[in-house]
Amino acid sequence: MKTLKLGICGLGTVASGVVNVLNRNREEISARTGCSIEIIQIASRTKKDNCDLTGIDFTTDLNAVVTNPEVDVVLELIGGYSPAKELVETALQAGKHVVTANKALIAEHGNELFALANSAGVSLCYEASVAGGIPIIKSVREGLAANDISSVAGIINGTGNFILTEMRDKGRDFEDVLKEAQALGYAEADPTFDVEGIDAAHKLVLLASAAFGITLQFKKAFTEGISKVSTDDVNYAEELGYTIKHLGIAKKRGDGVELRVHPTLISKSALISKVDGVMNAVVVTGDAVGDTLYYGAGAGSEATASAVIADVVDVARALVAGAKPIVPGLGFEAEALKDTSIIEIGDVVCPFYLRVMATDAPGALASITSIMSKHGINIDSITQRENEQVGDMTPVIMLTHEVKEDVVNLAISEIEQLSNTAGVVVKHRVAQF
Amino acid sequence: MKTLKLGICGLGTVASGVVNVLNRNREEISARTGCSIEIIQIASRTKKDNCDLTGIDFTTDLNAVVTNPEVDVVLELIGGYSPAKELVETALQAGKHVVTANKALIAEHGNELFALANSAGVSLCYEASVAGGIPIIKSVREGLAANDISSVAGIINGTGNFILTEMRDKGRDFEDVLKEAQALGYAEADPTFDVEGIDAAHKLVLLASAAFGITLQFKKAFTEGISKVSTDDVNYAEELGYTIKHLGIAKKRGDGVELRVHPTLISKSALISKVDGVMNAVVVTGDAVGDTLYYGAGAGSEATASAVIADVVDVARALVAGAKPIVPGLGFEAEALKDTSIIEIGDVVCPFYLRVMATDAPGALASITSIMSKHGINIDSITQRENEQVGDMTPVIMLTHEVKEDVVNLAISEIEQLSNTAGVVVKHRVAQF
Repeated sequence: MKTLKLGICGLGTVASGVVNVLNRNREEISARTGCSIEIIQIASRTKKDNCDLTGIDFTTDLNAVVTNPEVDVVLELIGGYSPAKELVETALQAGKHVVTANKALIAEHGNELFALANSAGVSLCYEASVAGGIPIIKSVREGLAANDISSVAGIINGTGNFILTEMRDKGRDFEDVLKEAQALGYAEADPTFDVEGIDAAHKLVLLASAAFGITLQFKKAFTEGISKVSTDDVNYAEELGYTIKHLGIAKKRGDGVELRVHPTLISKSALISKVDGVMNAVVVTGDAVGDTLYYGAGAGSEATASAVIADVVDVARALVAGAKPIVPGLGFEAEALKDTSIIEIGDVVCPFYLRVMATDAPGALASITSIMSKHGINIDSITQRENEQVGDMTPVIMLTHEVKEDVVNLAISEIEQLSNTAGVVVKHRVAQF
Repeated sequence: MKTLKLGICGLGTVASGVVNVLNRNREEISARTGCSIEIIQIASRTKKDNCDLTGIDFTTDLNAVVTNPEVDVVLELIGGYSPAKELVETALQAGKHVVTANKALIAEHGNELFALANSAGVSLCYEASVAGGIPIIKSVREGLAANDISSVAGIINGTGNFILTEMRDKGRDFEDVLKEAQALGYAEADPTFDVEGIDAAHKLVLLASAAFGITLQFKKAFTEGISKVSTDDVNYAEELGYTIKHLGIAKKRGDGVELRVHPTLISKSALISKVDGVMNAVVVTGDAVGDTLYYGAGAGSEATASAVIADVVDVARALVAGAKPIVPGLGFEAEALKDTSIIEIGDVVCPFYLRVMATDAPGALASITSIMSKHGINIDSITQRENEQVGDMTPVIMLTHEVKEDVVNLAISEIEQLSNTAGVVVKHRVAQF
């Protein structure tokens, strides 16, 4: 039986999960691959005692792993940009396959790293970067390869989904739930990446490229966090039949691609609206298959390890079959990738949820609706919540039909200047499933 | 660019979907595979005009396709046992890869067919056999390969799910909805395979083997259809917080494996309980990843074609990479497959839903509960529906804790003999997610 030798950079949550799962399921994984998979070296600043490192060479020198001539596959599990990028580059240049869980690295530097892997004739695998243990990259790149995929939309940040679920189910405020998420270890001390949607945007960019065959364009992704979602709006949305989720949406439209992460109203009749707590789910729509959904744990030591090891299994099976890498990094042959332009958020077309604070007098609704009408915005429903007066102002909740965001913004700025409205108009986008 | 040449046996719903999708997405699929995929020959009794056959050699001789020296991959899309089996055998023996959507063939003859494919060094692919367009075989064999998978449970027959959804949502009877399903083309003229769970059992057996690494043992699967599910029970279940779904369940327990298809009560808090109409979904539970769910169209021309072509793409990519087949047929190396025994239905342990028609007098409940108690069956809830008297009998609805089915059956036969009960006791199994 062949042996595939792994070297791991990092010994944090994910790496210790990989060690534990490989130790526990060694026999089953060999039976699946026809190959023995052995971790021969791990590099980390500190040794952990939450996994059994018997027989594994431990070092504090990360470079030792990526330059070790015995290592076939490097698992980059330290995260961040540097030295992760340099380590991955060195490993690829040395002809080693690389498996990573580092969404930030691939989303921001993937174009050059995949080119490097290509020219070295090795695989750069990143299933664990997106939606933890859910085999979503495999589903998009392989399982749905027959399709012209028109959209990918997902709840791809568990922290954000936990916070929004608690806000909805228990009426708690954002700040309050965030503190609990930090105490539970779901959110980092600096929660910016999670709650401002940067983490979700990293994942979305990877999904979009693998689905549409486009280069990675992280800088062009639109990102809006959940820190400004209020419990009031969560409740109003519920009453209208919607749940607010922090959604990443990638969609082909005309010659371009929408790439956006923001709080989103989803009809409660859609399956993805039922995905709560820290769980993740991704809806992929293809012209042949229609809507498909993939659900599971988006984070956690062993769930993420499951995806890391699945990538290792792919490499092992290809090795046993005597093959070069089987599936192109972004699902399409490198020379077929397109630099499709990303649509500016102002040009995105979707229905909107708007909340205006207005005086509870006949003139207010008339002023608001006439502005909407002037801009050609079709109102699907409008309600004035008379029992929820704040001072002399009452919330007016509107749902619009599909309209360009720039047009809605114009209407909003005019509404905000009305004498019978107060404060800023709250705006959230609606997604249709 | 290499060319992969396909020959198709059959030109029914699925085959015409394959032709249409390959024609439409030719460029995209080439960009994904680095390979040109061409249908060179199709054999069928009759020619259809619902797809463009330009440039394809059409024949009525099925054998011509499987013996055509130009054909690299045979798509067996005629269904049934014979001549499908002989065609697949001939093709494999001739060193051709085979892609099939034929669950009955693989579930009942897969052990020998995979052995044949193995010795010929070619792939026998069957993604389209299970849950239509959902890439569930790929997810189980590859995406979750790191896991010790403990259970697979799914709604894997769209016809049955459509019927149960209509019964629940519209209070219609089984027979009534079945007639509509037949008119809509969801159900065959002879609906036995769908409504009696045989079709679902075929798919379940494939899932179980790929998940657990066991040989195919279709004959040992337990099958109970939905034809005896009454609207009353659907409603009572709803009121207790459950939905009745026709579920295929494969579960490791001790040294054996449960393999059963039957109407099943599922808590409405479980995501899979929300999967309605003709849609399919499968929950796979692994020790590392936890619960994952895969949802999509379980049937239909192009959804099934999506899975057929995904298999072709796998073969094409392996060809381009210069490899022998990459993934073993049942996900495990042939010599590693185990003949694990299938647990008899009487030995299955789960909670039960029971409905007894009993006199609305103090003695009845006492007699019933004392029988349950005598057999050590723990009752989770019991309700006598006083407003729903039929003659002088009133339904008594019980939910039990986990108990062995043989024990429940003993209690039921004693309850049926009580003088203050009438008729048969309705029994349904409950699944916990």
